[in-house]
Amino acid sequence: MIPEITAKLLEAKKEKGLSFADLEAILGRDEVWIAAVFYRQASASLEEATKIVAALGLGTEIVASLTEYPVKGLGPVVPTDPLIYRFYEIMQVYGMPLKSVIHEKFGDGIMSAIDFTLDVDKEEDPKGDRVKITMSGKFLPYKKW
Amino acid sequence: MIPEITAKLLEAKKEKGLSFADLEAILGRDEVWIAAVFYRQASASLEEATKIVAALGLGTEIVASLTEYPVKGLGPVVPTDPLIYRFYEIMQVYGMPLKSVIHEKFGDGIMSAIDFTLDVDKEEDPKGDRVKITMSGKFLPYKKW
Amino acid sequence: MIPEITAKLLEAKKEKGLSFADLEAILGRDEVWIAAVFYRQASASLEEATKIVAALGLGTEIVASLTEYPVKGLGPVVPTDPLIYRFYEIMQVYGMPLKSVIHEKFGDGIMSAIDFTLDVDKEEDPKGDRVKITMSGKFLPYKKW
Amino acid sequence: MIPEITAKLLEAKKEKGLSFADLEAILGRDEVWIAAVFYRQASASLEEATKIVAALGLGTEIVASLTEYPVKGLGPVVPTDPLIYRFYEIMQVYGMPLKSVIHEKFGDGIMSAIDFTLDVDKEEDPKGDRVKITMSGKFLPYKKW
Amino acid sequence: MIPEITAKLLEAKKEKGLSFADLEAILGRDEVWIAAVFYRQASASLEEATKIVAALGLGTEIVASLTEYPVKGLGPVVPTDPLIYRFYEIMQVYGMPLKSVIHEKFGDGIMSAIDFTLDVDKEEDPKGDRVKITMSGKFLPYKKW
Amino acid sequence: MIPEITAKLLEAKKEKGLSFADLEAILGRDEVWIAAVFYRQASASLEEATKIVAALGLGTEIVASLTEYPVKGLGPVVPTDPLIYRFYEIMQVYGMPLKSVIHEKFGDGIMSAIDFTLDVDKEEDPKGDRVKITMSGKFLPYKKW
Amino acid sequence: MIPEITAKLLEAKKEKGLSFADLEAILGRDEVWIAAVFYRQASASLEEATKIVAALGLGTEIVASLTEYPVKGLGPVVPTDPLIYRFYEIMQVYGMPLKSVIHEKFGDGIMSAIDFTLDVDKEEDPKGDRVKITMSGKFLPYKKW
Amino acid sequence: MIPEITAKLLEAKKEKGLSFADLEAILGRDEVWIAAVFYRQASASLEEATKIVAALGLGTEIVASLTEYPVKGLGPVVPTDPLIYRFYEIMQVYGMPLKSVIHEKFGDGIMSAIDFTLDVDKEEDPKGDRVKITMSGKFLPYKKW
Amino acid sequence: MIPEITAKLLEAKKEKGLSFADLEAILGRDEVWIAAVFYRQASASLEEATKIVAALGLGTEIVASLTEYPVKGLGPVVPTDPLIYRFYEIMQVYGMPLKSVIHEKFGDGIMSAIDFTLDVDKEEDPKGDRVKITMSGKFLPYKKW
Amino acid sequence: MIPEITAKLLEAKKEKGLSFADLEAILGRDEVWIAAVFYRQASASLEEATKIVAALGLGTEIVASLTEYPVKGLGPVVPTDPLIYRFYEIMQVYGMPLKSVIHEKFGDGIMSAIDFTLDVDKEEDPKGDRVKITMSGKFLPYKKW
Repeated sequence: MIPEITAKLLEAKKEKGLSFADLEAILGRDEVWIAAVFYRQASASLEEATKIVAALGLGTEIVASLTEYPVKGLGPVVPTDPLIYRFYEIMQVYGMPLKSVIHEKFGDGIMSAIDFTLDVDKEEDPKGDRVKITMSGKFLPYKKW
Repeated sequence: MIPEITAKLLEAKKEKGLSFADLEAILGRDEVWIAAVFYRQASASLEEATKIVAALGLGTEIVASLTEYPVKGLGPVVPTDPLIYRFYEIMQVYGMPLKSVIHEKFGDGIMSAIDFTLDVDKEEDPKGDRVKITMSGKFLPYKKW
Repeated sequence: MIPEITAKLLEAKKEKGLSFADLEAILGRDEVWIAAVFYRQASASLEEATKIVAALGLGTEIVASLTEYPVKGLGPVVPTDPLIYRFYEIMQVYGMPLKSVIHEKFGDGIMSAIDFTLDVDKEEDPKGDRVKITMSGKFLPYKKW
Repeated sequence: MIPEITAKLLEAKKEKGLSFADLEAILGRDEVWIAAVFYRQASASLEEATKIVAALGLGTEIVASLTEYPVKGLGPVVPTDPLIYRFYEIMQVYGMPLKSVIHEKFGDGIMSAIDFTLDVDKEEDPKGDRVKITMSGKFLPYKKW
Repeated sequence: MIPEITAKLLEAKKEKGLSFADLEAILGRDEVWIAAVFYRQASASLEEATKIVAALGLGTEIVASLTEYPVKGLGPVVPTDPLIYRFYEIMQVYGMPLKSVIHEKFGDGIMSAIDFTLDVDKEEDPKGDRVKITMSGKFLPYKKW
Repeated sequence: MIPEITAKLLEAKKEKGLSFADLEAILGRDEVWIAAVFYRQASASLEEATKIVAALGLGTEIVASLTEYPVKGLGPVVPTDPLIYRFYEIMQVYGMPLKSVIHEKFGDGIMSAIDFTLDVDKEEDPKGDRVKITMSGKFLPYKKW
Repeated sequence: MIPEITAKLLEAKKEKGLSFADLEAILGRDEVWIAAVFYRQASASLEEATKIVAALGLGTEIVASLTEYPVKGLGPVVPTDPLIYRFYEIMQVYGMPLKSVIHEKFGDGIMSAIDFTLDVDKEEDPKGDRVKITMSGKFLPYKKW
Repeated sequence: MIPEITAKLLEAKKEKGLSFADLEAILGRDEVWIAAVFYRQASASLEEATKIVAALGLGTEIVASLTEYPVKGLGPVVPTDPLIYRFYEIMQVYGMPLKSVIHEKFGDGIMSAIDFTLDVDKEEDPKGDRVKITMSGKFLPYKKW
Repeated sequence: MIPEITAKLLEAKKEKGLSFADLEAILGRDEVWIAAVFYRQASASLEEATKIVAALGLGTEIVASLTEYPVKGLGPVVPTDPLIYRFYEIMQVYGMPLKSVIHEKFGDGIMSAIDFTLDVDKEEDPKGDRVKITMSGKFLPYKKW
Repeated sequence: MIPEITAKLLEAKKEKGLSFADLEAILGRDEVWIAAVFYRQASASLEEATKIVAALGLGTEIVASLTEYPVKGLGPVVPTDPLIYRFYEIMQVYGMPLKSVIHEKFGDGIMSAIDFTLDVDKEEDPKGDRVKITMSGKFLPYKKW
């Protein structure tokens, strides 16, 4: 499931002792987006790819790969990994309620998954820390013709 | 796909001219959670159910139904509705990057989809308004035994 | 598969002897989009819905239904109807070539299926008439963040 | 998913700095069709294969492969790549409307996906460039017997 | 799986004591094609539909239905009925050999399933009668563009 | 999907410039059956295997493989290759009509796919050549016990 | 899943206090085959259907239904009922060993599921009674052509 | 699908010219069970494994593998091999009748597929030899608690 | 998904204000087993069925239904309800470890799901109450033959 | 299905003659959890990983792998291995009863599969030893917001 280049990038990152947050500081791009480049779900510019490769101490021969436009998507229809499955469950359970509320606020259309950002934050909480996910996608109204 | 009771609730809400945001003001619960009660994905307390039914001008005989513990989930494995599909796509494309970043910040475990909240906001933007989704779930570390 | 309201609309259209092209002339909207309203895949404005209902000689009680935001999508994962299947086959056979050519011309991103139009024309040809399908969708570049 | 020969052809094309549009100029065939030959979804004549191989500076030993009749089709039932998925979504959402309009214009039958052409154009637009897809397929009426 | 109108047609045919072969004599169309009209997999002309309805002694109100363009296809992905499954098995077992032989005789292209006829004959044989199926479909060469 | 031995046989056949029809003349077996042996969907006798290997100029070490009883079947549930898919479509569209006509002619039972032959012929036709497929399978009546 | 007529037959059988073994004595057909007629997986002759209906004290209007040629098969791809699942498991676990042993004893071919009988017996055993299933199917050798 | 060790065992068996029936004589275990060990669906004792390996003239280093507890099951949900498929078809067609008859004879419970034996015999018959399959499984009544 | 009789039983239980634990006290059977009778996944004796029906104040006409041998199983391949899904996840994540440990302790065989009991207990815990599930199934060693 | 590292760990464990119960004594962690680490379904701390590697006599280069956060889950949607399938069957048959009983005892929420322990014990029994599985998961009530 995981491309060979991803394994190589993750290994180099581990050897360098870098977190995605460290790479965020180096690149000026969000850690989630950088992780998406690692997993070949997003494509970097030449400059970004060069910085990533340099930070990881890898050879320049893999710079080009990171600028390509990958075939995206995880593969398994229903994910079995519990962390990823919870996002599938959220769509199963809250999909229709989300649809109702978004249509009520915006009319007919969708939230873009392309003109889209995704952030992960840690909320410290005495009853147990919380994962905060923030998604922001442009609303795209259905065009009539 | 949509239970009979959901259709009845949505129709009454339409006739009363109420938005989910209006119900949020009446109930003191978030509009997404209220929509989840409508779609029988969440269960209300007796008091909450009574308030919803009163606000919609429906008979009290359906109060009890809203307090039951429903069988949850949309049904189709891969959703075909474009608005809901985008959440599936986000999980397909950004699932592994999210997994990496969450594990890096929190260790082995998951974001709870039960001790969990979900908000929808409208971000006005001259280049086109944006849908902002905020999820907050308790981090649950894997127990060792 | 086909909603009850669709059957009612199609029957009325047949009794009135109207084609979708006739409705295009009446509404000032494309015939494919109007057919999409009939199949509850697109939502009309109040004015458009009123015109459709009037043209078909139906009661005004169904105007409101046409303005709602439907759950979209055909249902079966792989269509069995031969006419519809050919579009599935085109995606199977030409999907990767299309991806390559679009990325080459536009960079990383997609053709929107929301800010999107679709036309059907008949090209007369002595060797057999041809169906001409024209799709126009806004290019959406992947946002980086 | 992608055959070994496709990877070799794409790499050579990249090294030569050729676009599919450049190959269109060399071959006198449309860029989408040429991309389909690369992905082994279409078969070239000996002459066409020779020209492609020469343009890419590859050895003649792969000419024959490009003239073979491949097993066609992408593989995954529902594509996960967002660019390709949008074509699947178009079939899901607009499949029945298309069926209605095509039958109304042509009678019972289908648009051929074999006697078929497919073009991609870039429409410049100040509100954002648009992808224009033009399909032209022979109408095949159902034979009665 | 079987439309209501099909049940009505089959019942009337049974009451009249007519075989599909009898209907072939009346209509001048092949019995398999007529059975396809019964199962709403093919559409009759007004004249054909009128003849079928008259032969079965049914009311004229169902003539129009038989001229419509149905959504075609059986439904279950892999058929469970043993008679129908054998055709699926033939495609599984002999699909690739057929592909090789057809390409060798005709080049790249397909046998049309639209410009297509299908006959069933009984071959008497002392070792056990045989079912003879004859398919004839126009060869459609892949168009290059 | 295609076994290694199939690739070797097809390559040798190509180098020798032999068609399946040529092999039919050499073996005294139908070209489709011979193609089925190549794809390991049918098993040859020792004598037949020896003749095939000799005709192709291959080493005798692969004779034995061709006499084995293979695990049969293509693999993908719904074929994506357009040529093979058309046979799937025929089963989807004409399966129930075939069932009706065969039962009417023969009673309850099936057409054997084992005591079965399959021929491909080219019918020349000024409006476009036609592919003629002839299947002949023993009728097997359901045994009662 | 269970046809209406099956429910009616089972209910009548229960009211009459008849077992399938009793019906076996009345009809001179095996109890499993009779149960297959009840579930519309086998078709009775007019005489057999008349006897079944008389034994159950049902009206003669359902005799004809039992002589029809049903669409056979349970439906769910993988059965969930534990009793039926075990037969699926036997095929999963012992399918390849059975294939090897049958081919070794008989050559290339199959055991017919049409010219086939199936019996259930109770074997009393002090360590727990055993279910004995005996299948007998004609061996069908693959025809070469 | 077939483990490497199975291929090695089958090849050795072929070179030695041994049938499963020969191994049955050597081991004192049924040929089907021995074939199940070959396909890694059953586990042998050390003594049994040693005898098998000796009979096949293989090295003792593979004795241990045959005593392991394999992950059992064929893999494909619906088998495509015609011989194995017939057992799937029997479950589809006769599953519910079997369920009825077994419950009638034994009450609520199942036939064990673990405390279970399976034999294959050849019944010579002038109208064509028959495959006789005998299954014997302990009846397991549902425990109430 | 839920049979009509289940809905009736649950409603009566609610009206009577009885918990499954109350029914356990009345019947002398475990609450989980009683719930399984309600959902038609287990069959009661005549005496047990009579007690259940009496406790719920329902008419005796439904006693017989509870003694029948139902077709068991939930239906959806992967459950979407979060509570039930967690058991699916446990099998996905801990299935292989369980297999290893059970084989190590018991040898080749399985835990019976028929000679099986299942209990649910509430463990009070200051850090949050815990659900305790206890399963006890007879170990069934694979029979050799 | 089984990762390479798992095979290496199991082999080393076998050579050392260690059971999971022995490792439990060495590590102070439950044998099921340790097996989950072997199958890469759980992640060990550095100290735990070091102890495991030392106990097995393996090189320290694999210590780090055991501390990683694996992609969890078996893979096949419905398991074919009989031992693992029984857990799937338990979920199919007893899923809804469990849901009812848990909701009755705890209200709306789930049993955590993360804050969760799982034990396997052997219960000696003269009628046949029993497998006892004890699961303990924190009850997580649905949060309202």
